[in-house]
This record gives sequence, C-alpha cells and structure tokens, in this order.
Amino acid sequence: MTEKADKIKKTEEKIKDENTIFIGNKPSMQYVIAVVTQFNSNGCNKVFLKARGRTISRAVDTAEIVKNRFMKNIIIKDIQIGTENLTNEEGRKSNVSTIEISLLNNNKSNSTKNK
Amino acid sequence: MTEKADKIKKTEEKIKDENTIFIGNKPSMQYVIAVVTQFNSNGCNKVFLKARGRTISRAVDTAEIVKNRFMKNIIIKDIQIGTENLTNEEGRKSNVSTIEISLLNNNKSNSTKNK
Repeated sequence: MTEKADKIKKTEEKIKDENTIFIGNKPSMQYVIAVVTQFNSNGCNKVFLKARGRTISRAVDTAEIVKNRFMKNIIIKDIQIGTENLTNEEGRKSNVSTIEISLLNNNKSNSTKNK
Repeated sequence: MTEKADKIKKTEEKIKDENTIFIGNKPSMQYVIAVVTQFNSNGCNKVFLKARGRTISRAVDTAEIVKNRFMKNIIIKDIQIGTENLTNEEGRKSNVSTIEISLLNNNKSNSTKNK
C-alpha cells in the first residue's frame, strides 16, 4: 500500500517536473510561448510556472497573458507562495520568496477524463 | 432577500477596504510592520495585501516575512491574480498584472467565532 502510494507520488512528481517552466530574466513573451507550446504541442493539461525573487511578477504576467490573450480556456488552478534559503558565493545566507502557479487546460481535462 | 444579500456584500467590502494594505515602492519591512500592526492593534483577523506590476514580488516577500518571522499563527488563506487596464498621461493604454494575498489570523478566527 505504502509502496504503491510512493510510486504514484513519484510518477506525479516526474510529470510535474516535465511540465514546469522556470521563469528567469527573459522577456515575459518568451515564457508565454513556452507555456502555449507545452499545452498545444506536448499535450499537457497542466503546466506549472515557478519563479523566485524579482521574477515573481513576471510569472504572474506570463500566466495572465496566456489566459487573457492566447488560451481563454486556461484556468489558474492554484497559487502557492513560499521561502527558499539560499547561500551565495561568499557563504552568506539569505531568504528568497518563491511562487508556483498551476495552470489547467479546462477543455482537455474534461474531454480526457478517462485517459 | 436580495437587499439583505446586498447589504452583507457592502459590509464585507467595507471591512475589506479597511483591512487592505497596498504595496508600493517602500522597503518590504515597512509593509511587514503595517500588517503586524493591523493584526495586533486594530484587532483584525484578516488582512489583504494588494500589489501590481513589479511590486508583486514585494507583496509575496511581505506575506512570507510576516508568516515566518513575526506571526507563526498566520495562514495564507487565498491568492488571486488578475489584470488591470491602465491609461498613462499620454493616453496610451497598457495592462498591468495584480495580486491579492489574503492573510488570516488562525488563532483569532478560532477564539472569536461567535463574535
């Protein structure tokens, strides 16, 4: 039972890793294209956006642009925020805020419920 | 029935306005102090953080600092993101992303349930 649960958890984590887009310092539009590609070409019905520090606002921009301009059927399923401990090159520790936005393709999840 | 619902809605909106802290360009710590004051001195059990554009990451920082360092009993109840249309001085329109983070004082909401 526990093994099975473990296996399911690991599979879920693997799927999540593959569907995660990390937001960096490029223009938002590049991440928008990445999200749309992930949904359309790779057939995912869930995409996760992860960002930390100052790029958090770019993650929100990306989610909003995808939802409002490109894929009206996308819903923002969940937003989680958190804190990560970083150690820089000089050995100084600092905290940085993180965000994880889960986007769900509403059409696909309805039509492939039994998949 | 509808009138009553309207009244309740208006009261809720009024409370929300009073408990909302708008995040601007000051250092995060100033907003942290504002949140803690709102919870402790003004006796609120819910505080809303609102931010737009680049200050979104500061809103996340504020929520995380309050939760991790100052008030361990705070929970992040809800996070909403959205888009606002702005018209600048030259009449050009632009979209800006927004975030609203709802913080709940878990202790207070348990102890004053009948209030």
